Amino acid sequence: MKNLKLVKLNDFKERSTIKIGDSTIGKDFVIIAGPCSVESEEQTMQTAEAVKKGNGNMLRGGAFKPRTSPYDFQGLGLKGLKILEKAKEQTGLPIVTEVIDPRDVSWVCEYADILQIGARNMQNFSLLKEVGKSKKPILLKRGMYSTLREWLNCAEYILAEGNPDVILCERGIRTFETYTRNTLDLSIIPAVKELTHLPIMVDPSHGTGKLSLIEPMCLASVAAGADGLLIEVHINPEEAKSDADQQLTPEQFYSITEKVLKLKKFIDSLDS
Amino acid sequence: MKNLKLVKLNDFKERSTIKIGDSTIGKDFVIIAGPCSVESEEQTMQTAEAVKKGNGNMLRGGAFKPRTSPYDFQGLGLKGLKILEKAKEQTGLPIVTEVIDPRDVSWVCEYADILQIGARNMQNFSLLKEVGKSKKPILLKRGMYSTLREWLNCAEYILAEGNPDVILCERGIRTFETYTRNTLDLSIIPAVKELTHLPIMVDPSHGTGKLSLIEPMCLASVAAGADGLLIEVHINPEEAKSDADQQLTPEQFYSITEKVLKLKKFIDSLDS
Amino acid sequence: MKNLKLVKLNDFKERSTIKIGDSTIGKDFVIIAGPCSVESEEQTMQTAEAVKKGNGNMLRGGAFKPRTSPYDFQGLGLKGLKILEKAKEQTGLPIVTEVIDPRDVSWVCEYADILQIGARNMQNFSLLKEVGKSKKPILLKRGMYSTLREWLNCAEYILAEGNPDVILCERGIRTFETYTRNTLDLSIIPAVKELTHLPIMVDPSHGTGKLSLIEPMCLASVAAGADGLLIEVHINPEEAKSDADQQLTPEQFYSITEKVLKLKKFIDSLDS
Amino acid sequence: MKNLKLVKLNDFKERSTIKIGDSTIGKDFVIIAGPCSVESEEQTMQTAEAVKKGNGNMLRGGAFKPRTSPYDFQGLGLKGLKILEKAKEQTGLPIVTEVIDPRDVSWVCEYADILQIGARNMQNFSLLKEVGKSKKPILLKRGMYSTLREWLNCAEYILAEGNPDVILCERGIRTFETYTRNTLDLSIIPAVKELTHLPIMVDPSHGTGKLSLIEPMCLASVAAGADGLLIEVHINPEEAKSDADQQLTPEQFYSITEKVLKLKKFIDSLDS
Repeated sequence: MKNLKLVKLNDFKERSTIKIGDSTIGKDFVIIAGPCSVESEEQTMQTAEAVKKGNGNMLRGGAFKPRTSPYDFQGLGLKGLKILEKAKEQTGLPIVTEVIDPRDVSWVCEYADILQIGARNMQNFSLLKEVGKSKKPILLKRGMYSTLREWLNCAEYILAEGNPDVILCERGIRTFETYTRNTLDLSIIPAVKELTHLPIMVDPSHGTGKLSLIEPMCLASVAAGADGLLIEVHINPEEAKSDADQQLTPEQFYSITEKVLKLKKFIDSLDS
Repeated sequence: MKNLKLVKLNDFKERSTIKIGDSTIGKDFVIIAGPCSVESEEQTMQTAEAVKKGNGNMLRGGAFKPRTSPYDFQGLGLKGLKILEKAKEQTGLPIVTEVIDPRDVSWVCEYADILQIGARNMQNFSLLKEVGKSKKPILLKRGMYSTLREWLNCAEYILAEGNPDVILCERGIRTFETYTRNTLDLSIIPAVKELTHLPIMVDPSHGTGKLSLIEPMCLASVAAGADGLLIEVHINPEEAKSDADQQLTPEQFYSITEKVLKLKKFIDSLDS
Repeated sequence: MKNLKLVKLNDFKERSTIKIGDSTIGKDFVIIAGPCSVESEEQTMQTAEAVKKGNGNMLRGGAFKPRTSPYDFQGLGLKGLKILEKAKEQTGLPIVTEVIDPRDVSWVCEYADILQIGARNMQNFSLLKEVGKSKKPILLKRGMYSTLREWLNCAEYILAEGNPDVILCERGIRTFETYTRNTLDLSIIPAVKELTHLPIMVDPSHGTGKLSLIEPMCLASVAAGADGLLIEVHINPEEAKSDADQQLTPEQFYSITEKVLKLKKFIDSLDS
Repeated sequence: MKNLKLVKLNDFKERSTIKIGDSTIGKDFVIIAGPCSVESEEQTMQTAEAVKKGNGNMLRGGAFKPRTSPYDFQGLGLKGLKILEKAKEQTGLPIVTEVIDPRDVSWVCEYADILQIGARNMQNFSLLKEVGKSKKPILLKRGMYSTLREWLNCAEYILAEGNPDVILCERGIRTFETYTRNTLDLSIIPAVKELTHLPIMVDPSHGTGKLSLIEPMCLASVAAGADGLLIEVHINPEEAKSDADQQLTPEQFYSITEKVLKLKKFIDSLDS
């Protein structure tokens, strides 16, 4: 990485922290959870309550869905954002939601506490520059084909526009393996920590695409030093309009976060 | 591919053709050539003359450059498009240029004869929908991590908006091999032909990233049935602001296109 | 490749040639064809006749089959070699057959004109050393995960034991793409030619795993400069005990080789 | 995995365990450590003492080294095995060592407590069948290009010969990422556990190739449910004849195993 001009990333003396609501990302361990897509008010409200009950710190939910096929459900758009706003009012959970079009950034900021850049848009440089001009923290997912060096350069696109609040999120890379949806690369966690001052989270839902693998990958992420987790939860996964196979029920979510938080405490005690 | 809803792609009786200037893509073999980036009027004019002299049918050149680092040359923007316009006036060559932001589509259409969607934006669905609403033919490059199925779905995003004129372009996929910049997947040419009615071109410049491999990959593309080639040519490759290692000199270009066109004629005679 | 100790490969003044029967590999264009597995005398004899009729220069056929599952057909072993010997007697075609165990090398040499090292054994260094001590030419397939540098080092293992007759064979690498069985990397042909003096052939049957893609990839290989082709042919592909989906019928084979040989002649005329 | 004939793997009611010396793999958490290569008696003895002191349960060390180039150090062979034997006498640590040639299996068994099949030989079916006939437990590393399904089939090759004692070992797969030597796929741990009764270990030394990433990946492996670890330790890593960049000093090893064992205890308490 020697030839990188990542001045802002390399000249760091302390790690970045980002305060949102009651949590400080980069300092507290943060769990962001919620449905893949906002599908209805009822589904979102109930899931938000479950997220809160399960010690989630923020609510995630997609209003704009980048889908492989144009004929798949594309999200509720503004209507979805209004539902998320309502869920925030009711639960107090800050909102993390994806933006996919530079023209939407300014008004999505009215609803979002954190703007998410999805894996397919990691190198959508127009979008990166636009969110770099916003005042919101950016959760930047790693592209499924992206090297560490390319990913950090995408963070740099945002930092270079004056927005210091970037959160990296590993969500699995594409390999030849077909048993899992993607191959979750947990070694990127310590790699990011040794090269940058940015917080890094992990999304084991997309990273594995398989319910049975989510808990062990949550625990492994904590042990590897992740600053938080993104987890898909749905009040009724079987009826989900997207990613039905990888969304946890509330009960599964409670069980996992309980273990995760215990483990996080233990890991912190190991280092002290 | 059975479960795809690619109705427009699957229900075809004859192959699509797109008439631009004197060439009909999908019927004539079309060579699109030019510099990676428009850097100056002189460089572009001279390169355009070389493209014409070397039997190129259209001029390519980037005014908006999606670059790994925010500190790399990002293109001349509008100024670059005006230079391309001038080159078209002088040589008569239609212009192929990349668009990377949905907000730019309408006015870039004033200058471009074909809009290019680059590999990094293949799944930038906002951009796909926007160019799908334009009246210009779209050259859709394959993402470096993209399966055939995903790529065809991106074409479908454009078709579904009402724009029937999509040209697919293979430009190499990302693999573990480091000798070449990407791994050019020529088997995708006949695969595209058996699944769709769309024309398919090949970009061996990005596909290999190595001067010495461009000629053999041009010839192989013709033999595999490609409808045309995208080739990077620069009047002075050593001084190029991007992709210096993979741009041909005019002389190299002349030599390659001469062989390519002879081979194309021979291949056509084989099938008849 | 600067740090490689591939002295024998790098210090070359002229390309290697290997005379076998009537053909000189590295000088003549050589077609090696036959069934994936030797299954019976009748199947092998009839296929050998078809190979000869279709201008094939050598007969390939597996007596030892490296199969994913231990419960799949593992080949006829010595019995298979004896059938190949008979086919050679009848048709005059030299025999190319795979060896998978160093203990078998000496006696398989009694039956084979060329020993094949399969993709899964590319880095089976014991086997490489053993065939390096034999007097037979070695057809060394590229491993499905192998970089160019690693592959050439495997050739060097054979050369270093004193056997100068190595033929490289590209057969597709493993990528994320699932439409084809492997991704055929044709750019490796000119890459091998610029780095080594060794002949290089292509196996589009394994490289694509799809009947419809074999002809275009054969033609593309010729255009890219390959020294020959390995093609799977079966007298009755539907009943084949392995690789049923990628074996040509004799008629398909005749049609392809006719075009291939015409193209080869044309390509040679282009360079002169 | 439905169509697999992995009867022995699928019809399990309880997990396999393998007793070696004082440890029971599959029940106890087992740390196998030692140098990449056996280089000398002094180096091996001192490293063995360090492994013992650092709570390692077994000593690993290569006497036969599968190296990319034929001119690299190939291991001490029999001399190396005798050194390992001496180290075992002195420390009581069972020996894990790689075998790369089916002709060596019977006599290597005289020195080894566990035979290792390396990544490059995962589909060396002759070797798998030979070790399947031995009475020693087999540590089967995942090939760097291997899907889960292929890997389990290789285990089945050993089981099918009558040897029930197979230990799987994830050591990283090959992807496009170049920051790490390989991409360690920790999701394979729970995947293996849900599909088979076999124990699974992780090798973070080869899996990352980077000293700084070994500790976090050790901890993550434990959290993900691994049955043990393979770790490279060298008394003087800078002078190592192979893999100098990824071997821990004894002090680094002590520090890691202390944390690993504490974490393992904690993880077990989470599940109970």
